[in-house]
Amino acid sequence: MTESSSRNLLQEFHRIFYPESIAVVGASQDKRKAGYYWLKAVVDAGYTGNVYPVNPKGGEVLGLKIYPSLRAIPGTVDYAIVCIPREAAPSLLDDCPAKKVKAVAFFTAGFKEIGDDVGYKLEEEMVSKAQQGGFRIIGPNCLGVYCPEWKIPCGPGGTIGESGTVGFISQSGGISAQLVELGIARGIKYSKGISFGNGIDLDSIDSLKYMAADPKTSVIGAYLEGVRNGSLLLNTIAEVTKVKPVIAWKAGRTEAGAAAAKSHTGSLTSSAAVWSAALKQGGAIEVHSLEELADTLLIFQQLQQWRGKGIAIVCGLADGGGGIAVSASDTCTELGLHMPPLSPPTRQRLTSLLGQAGSILHNPVDVSQAAGSLTTLRQTIELILADSAIDLVLVQEDMGMLLDYFPWEQVEAINDILIDLRTKQDKPLVSVLPPGPSDAARLQIERRLSQASIPVFTSMERAARAIVNLSRYSHFKAALRS
Amino acid sequence: MTESSSRNLLQEFHRIFYPESIAVVGASQDKRKAGYYWLKAVVDAGYTGNVYPVNPKGGEVLGLKIYPSLRAIPGTVDYAIVCIPREAAPSLLDDCPAKKVKAVAFFTAGFKEIGDDVGYKLEEEMVSKAQQGGFRIIGPNCLGVYCPEWKIPCGPGGTIGESGTVGFISQSGGISAQLVELGIARGIKYSKGISFGNGIDLDSIDSLKYMAADPKTSVIGAYLEGVRNGSLLLNTIAEVTKVKPVIAWKAGRTEAGAAAAKSHTGSLTSSAAVWSAALKQGGAIEVHSLEELADTLLIFQQLQQWRGKGIAIVCGLADGGGGIAVSASDTCTELGLHMPPLSPPTRQRLTSLLGQAGSILHNPVDVSQAAGSLTTLRQTIELILADSAIDLVLVQEDMGMLLDYFPWEQVEAINDILIDLRTKQDKPLVSVLPPGPSDAARLQIERRLSQASIPVFTSMERAARAIVNLSRYSHFKAALRS
Repeated sequence: MTESSSRNLLQEFHRIFYPESIAVVGASQDKRKAGYYWLKAVVDAGYTGNVYPVNPKGGEVLGLKIYPSLRAIPGTVDYAIVCIPREAAPSLLDDCPAKKVKAVAFFTAGFKEIGDDVGYKLEEEMVSKAQQGGFRIIGPNCLGVYCPEWKIPCGPGGTIGESGTVGFISQSGGISAQLVELGIARGIKYSKGISFGNGIDLDSIDSLKYMAADPKTSVIGAYLEGVRNGSLLLNTIAEVTKVKPVIAWKAGRTEAGAAAAKSHTGSLTSSAAVWSAALKQGGAIEVHSLEELADTLLIFQQLQQWRGKGIAIVCGLADGGGGIAVSASDTCTELGLHMPPLSPPTRQRLTSLLGQAGSILHNPVDVSQAAGSLTTLRQTIELILADSAIDLVLVQEDMGMLLDYFPWEQVEAINDILIDLRTKQDKPLVSVLPPGPSDAARLQIERRLSQASIPVFTSMERAARAIVNLSRYSHFKAALRS
Repeated sequence: MTESSSRNLLQEFHRIFYPESIAVVGASQDKRKAGYYWLKAVVDAGYTGNVYPVNPKGGEVLGLKIYPSLRAIPGTVDYAIVCIPREAAPSLLDDCPAKKVKAVAFFTAGFKEIGDDVGYKLEEEMVSKAQQGGFRIIGPNCLGVYCPEWKIPCGPGGTIGESGTVGFISQSGGISAQLVELGIARGIKYSKGISFGNGIDLDSIDSLKYMAADPKTSVIGAYLEGVRNGSLLLNTIAEVTKVKPVIAWKAGRTEAGAAAAKSHTGSLTSSAAVWSAALKQGGAIEVHSLEELADTLLIFQQLQQWRGKGIAIVCGLADGGGGIAVSASDTCTELGLHMPPLSPPTRQRLTSLLGQAGSILHNPVDVSQAAGSLTTLRQTIELILADSAIDLVLVQEDMGMLLDYFPWEQVEAINDILIDLRTKQDKPLVSVLPPGPSDAARLQIERRLSQASIPVFTSMERAARAIVNLSRYSHFKAALRS
């Protein structure tokens, strides 16, 4: 993309992500209806622009006057969220140019995805009205835009988290909402998101280009089912990955998944192998589940890049790290990470620190024998970080065992060491903190580590996959530069 | 195994798992020492037999008199937990026959796993003393037995959960403790467990045979690193799988993992491929992580067996189940589950219940359009369960979204429907309940479902793997019978 096309895109989309006014068409007083939920979601999120409920029945809802039509609204409307029967869609669109609408997001579903002729014809009619009217359609069958910075929630459930640097584009509203929910739980902070459903007008290609141009977005997650123009999308991805990492989850890979995708967003999917090959060639990182997508977005947000080679594993912070040391080594090396032996001087120093009995000191390092001594633990991790063969340290902590052995203050002190070491040198630390019976304590530690740019994962496997994904793009990007 | 050899084994092991007295050798007044932790763990667990702290220093600890030696204890000792320097091990063993000790579990580490000659020689000497004395050694470098029924905790951390039907054997103490912790968190209830570390005497083979004979154990989890006699172990596994499922996690599969296993339990591991093939041939279910081991134990505990073919996926209980429907179908079919289309009459009825717009009704079924109506949701799941092509229903619930849309009472009512349907018919229900920002609510629902024999998993992938594992053994067992 050229600089001027980026600028144009940013301009075109500006009032869609940062609207000065929002109309909720189909807003309802009936608390069981989507139109009620949507209106409440926008109001509760703290959106500060003008909010206009629209419903031919009129009246008032949540203290706001209901306008009988879009036309009846005084002034202009930047963004419209629509939940009305599909038959009413075309005439609504006729009202948009007069109100200078920039985009209409149709939450309304029941178009081509249900497979009847009416749905197809309605979609065609809608697209042509949008093109003539000079505005964009998002959806139908979608949640539209999410912009926490501008207090626009993700969907009628009102889900909204903190503002950050991760962008996402998604063909599914449910996946969008879950990404935001996971973000709130795990500290993934989004700049913007867009759920475009059937994507009859504004689709994955426009969305990706916008995210690439957006200065507030530094990594892009994409949930895709199928597209009208696969090769154009793949070319776009290849263009975007030159600038920012694209983490792509292509669903509908199997026969059962593809059939579901057709009913979901009316998408025809194509061969999984073709997609995987093309994504890889284009420099995108392909992931295969919501968990892997969230894990990968998290590590990109926290570490930006990692071009190292050697990782070290540290475990047994309370006791009994031996089995974890063995199995974690299997997991990490099977997934493609390199675990070099520590240098002889490092090992010698570790032996004098920890002793040989009950210790594993080669890499992985089982620090069980430091149990109780914060100084020994700190020195151990410092020694490993200082070893020139090691570029990243993975630390596994088991909250249940830590709390069986130590008082809470000591568990905090152990994590203070990790946080302090993270800030005092450049090699990344990554934490594996499996769930267990002490989830409230686990969550507190996860939040603290996360704030200190130590990404936290629930299993060694998930951490290793995320590191591999980060490393792959970092090397791809470095190769582009050279 | 013959019936009489089973009976003998049960007899031999009875006072090891159900000791009338326990000595903690190396018990200490020093709160930083393992000997203190161990004693406290046994006392706090509520063990009701006699507990004898042993330490040449004498004195008192936790209100118990410390005996200067094993010999000084009045009466007999069934089980001894030992945390003393390795050099003191042989002379301790000399005292065992007089006290009629059945087994000595050495928490003490630092034998052959550290690779020095002294360790090797000590182990040989210890084994010969045990053979001559007619008692068993567990370990060294282990946690010994776990028997929640008899209030024996898993390790010096004192970890103990409810008593149940799942047995485990483990070469790693840390993995044992984590299995117990995960059990407490997820409702996996153990009959017994045994952590045997270096396994110089009592090892994986004896442990497996005992678990096979134990009438209270119905499924056996095994964490293995390496063994002295691989072919004998594999034969034993093949014998045991005829009676009970064995879920085996073989670690030390990679070069890095094998090196760590040598430092951990002094084990020489052999080729991963050979193991996988042999385990499969023997009818064992091989798993590759702690998560998969726990997931598989859970599903065996909850469902015992499943010989069905077709599964159905239900999602979108609040809204936006489309993306989950697509991706869950990919996951389940890629992992080998069969998702047949629902029969035309079922689909017709679902269409009239849910309507076509916004629905996916083929299988997967996105029930978003039932949102709000408990009756519709119930009827939908009933229809699917009644379809003769379907033998199991997987339901994904997203707690964050449910709570965004519904009050807590309704979320409970939705799950009451699942629980009620589970009790009223024979086809299993399996729940996928991903973690998110509403973990406390999630945990409450997990507990309720779990108590109603609906196994709960954190992701579709993990649920699918567990179902595949259950199905594989169930078919293996059925083939044996025919």
